[in-house]
Amino acid sequence: MNIRTLEKSTKKDISFFDSIKYKKDAEKTKAICCITNDKLSKFLPQSCEKIVVTNVLFELAKTLKILYPLADIDYLDPNLKKPNISKFSKVKFGNNVLLGKNVKIGKNTQIGNNVVIETNVIIGNNCTLGSNLHVKNTIIGDNVVIQSGCNIGLKGFGFIPLKNKNLKMPHIGKVVINDNVEIASGCTIDRGSVDDTIIGKNTYLDNQVHVAHNVKIGDNCMIAGQVGFAGSSTIGNNVSIGGQAGVSGHLKVGNNVKIGGGSGVIKNIEDNAIVMGYPAIPFKDFIKNWKK
Amino acid sequence: MNIRTLEKSTKKDISFFDSIKYKKDAEKTKAICCITNDKLSKFLPQSCEKIVVTNVLFELAKTLKILYPLADIDYLDPNLKKPNISKFSKVKFGNNVLLGKNVKIGKNTQIGNNVVIETNVIIGNNCTLGSNLHVKNTIIGDNVVIQSGCNIGLKGFGFIPLKNKNLKMPHIGKVVINDNVEIASGCTIDRGSVDDTIIGKNTYLDNQVHVAHNVKIGDNCMIAGQVGFAGSSTIGNNVSIGGQAGVSGHLKVGNNVKIGGGSGVIKNIEDNAIVMGYPAIPFKDFIKNWKK
Amino acid sequence: MNIRTLEKSTKKDISFFDSIKYKKDAEKTKAICCITNDKLSKFLPQSCEKIVVTNVLFELAKTLKILYPLADIDYLDPNLKKPNISKFSKVKFGNNVLLGKNVKIGKNTQIGNNVVIETNVIIGNNCTLGSNLHVKNTIIGDNVVIQSGCNIGLKGFGFIPLKNKNLKMPHIGKVVINDNVEIASGCTIDRGSVDDTIIGKNTYLDNQVHVAHNVKIGDNCMIAGQVGFAGSSTIGNNVSIGGQAGVSGHLKVGNNVKIGGGSGVIKNIEDNAIVMGYPAIPFKDFIKNWKK
Repeated sequence: MNIRTLEKSTKKDISFFDSIKYKKDAEKTKAICCITNDKLSKFLPQSCEKIVVTNVLFELAKTLKILYPLADIDYLDPNLKKPNISKFSKVKFGNNVLLGKNVKIGKNTQIGNNVVIETNVIIGNNCTLGSNLHVKNTIIGDNVVIQSGCNIGLKGFGFIPLKNKNLKMPHIGKVVINDNVEIASGCTIDRGSVDDTIIGKNTYLDNQVHVAHNVKIGDNCMIAGQVGFAGSSTIGNNVSIGGQAGVSGHLKVGNNVKIGGGSGVIKNIEDNAIVMGYPAIPFKDFIKNWKK
Repeated sequence: MNIRTLEKSTKKDISFFDSIKYKKDAEKTKAICCITNDKLSKFLPQSCEKIVVTNVLFELAKTLKILYPLADIDYLDPNLKKPNISKFSKVKFGNNVLLGKNVKIGKNTQIGNNVVIETNVIIGNNCTLGSNLHVKNTIIGDNVVIQSGCNIGLKGFGFIPLKNKNLKMPHIGKVVINDNVEIASGCTIDRGSVDDTIIGKNTYLDNQVHVAHNVKIGDNCMIAGQVGFAGSSTIGNNVSIGGQAGVSGHLKVGNNVKIGGGSGVIKNIEDNAIVMGYPAIPFKDFIKNWKK
Repeated sequence: MNIRTLEKSTKKDISFFDSIKYKKDAEKTKAICCITNDKLSKFLPQSCEKIVVTNVLFELAKTLKILYPLADIDYLDPNLKKPNISKFSKVKFGNNVLLGKNVKIGKNTQIGNNVVIETNVIIGNNCTLGSNLHVKNTIIGDNVVIQSGCNIGLKGFGFIPLKNKNLKMPHIGKVVINDNVEIASGCTIDRGSVDDTIIGKNTYLDNQVHVAHNVKIGDNCMIAGQVGFAGSSTIGNNVSIGGQAGVSGHLKVGNNVKIGGGSGVIKNIEDNAIVMGYPAIPFKDFIKNWKK
């Protein structure tokens, strides 16, 4: 039994439903039971047992903490060791690399210096990882480049605000980095809370990009320096985003969208749109306003 | 004898007074003497000897350099050593941890890998520190989480601009991180110049947040990713700030304030206000303008 | 034979000419041959053999990859070793420093802990480098301070977008950091693609600044926290830039310019201008608009 999103739950899983945004997923969920609130419970199928509560995320956090007691903080991985070179004969390691248990690394992959790769991380073939990295709860495809100073797969910014002591949301999701991705130096990509954080094939991230939990970026995207994605947003394929732009949480940005540098995206964007500004508006309107 | 702020000076301390903003503190200071300029000297009490100069910060920097010759640059700590495990029997250390002299670490605290903790740092109980960290001139309470890749307590961005060779302002303050704080990966929190930089209890910082010298953030705040605080600003309690927002220097943000993502705060904000925009304005006005 | 910019090419060099912006350099180039397109070829001198192609940067990338096969990815430097102390008797090293071949470090320089300095890097006298750094393809002058957590000289964000697998642009330029520069923690400064990335004398960068490939920053500049520079922009002398501001690519910012915090510069700025806003406009106009 696992906790999964409405969409990904099988008949053996528990899910949660806390926002009308996910109504369609709720109606089709296969979850055997679901934590939800009084207003939303009617959208769940009859086959799904409803656990009706006042604060869905609060109960979810408590349930996750019981089932996954080590997921609420990035505790020290007790299994870290220098790599067993005989096991990784086709991998080049720099100095002071530490690997957890069950780490898999493909052939012709290089790992830099002062790198911590925790238990269960999988890295594909022909990857080049830089130095001073911390990688956990992550699956990396082939031909991926990760430059120095990145932190990938750490717990995201999720908690139930409580005076004096917030309740930390355990993060049981992963980061999935697909083939041919390039991630430049100083990026942070948080693992998903219940769902995964995903970087699509052949997508390139420039320096100091921040990708929050559950974000899904499509294929062939170009994300310039210092861009930030708040949690749970979905970005289509072939999207290009200029430097320092930000995308708010829980949004959907379509395919082939272009977002100008410094823009602040605070609502969904349709396919093929070109937007700029804070808040981001169609590029034509932005230029018109500017000329005024 | 120390150099302290007007507010914190005792009868044994030297202070400095360079801006009318600090008039109230000046009137009540107990400092035995004070570096100031001709215009401001009249606000100081009679008991305080005035050292009247043209450029207060320039003279302050020179005085600090004489009294604290190692505070103007983050020189290599010559006392760094692997931890003496018998002394820290209740602490878990990762690989390649270096501690300076007089470092104190509470029980059940974990320190990750490739971490440098310099002389006189104090860390409380039940803390979890990640990997690839540099911590100096810092006092950390209990139950604090600091994720990987943070730099805490380093010298702030302070200098007297001079052609060819600026005069660096020595930084003799600390960073104080109170109980139950969480600091996500890639954050930088600079130590205070003369005063301290303070993060209040149960305040959470997301990834890549920048906190400049002398900033004081209250309790129970939520600071999203890539937010930046310029020097010497004070943030109240229960403040939430959206991603990529910025707060200019020497401002006062009240309690229970909400600042929207991407906003640029360039003036004081009263308690309970909700602001957004660049420059930040009341949220209602922002939405009105946007709809136009 | 090397590949160089139009301006720097000697009679032995190949160059490339892909934008009318570089017309003046093209007319005076000494390059023996030049990759260009049909429209632009007429501006090149007769002495220069034209290689006319459809996509200049695509052909340039392919040519660079042939001539410099290891410049398209930051591969692991195979020559890294602990420093030979007898060779560096006047340098202080922290723990776990790795140096490549032919690294030169001047006297009275300090290098922190967990620092990787790759082959051919040159560092001057009286420098203070922090911890958890990665430095490659870089030349550093005297009295330079680099705080912890910076990544300097890594490959910039350059590639020819191709579905499924972008063509990475090899980066054969360097980073040049001149005397008396200070770079605060968490900065990323990418090396140039064909040209160099340059930080002028006595320029100070605050935390988390991002400097893209080929950017040239002049002398005596003050760059506050989280500022970003897109590729190939040129910043004059004595420029001050407030926190979180951004400068778009291929722009020219004059001398003595002041750019307000949070601004987005998307066109050239003349000497002595004071600008603010997104997009950045003269400060007077910005204040006028704000008061409306």
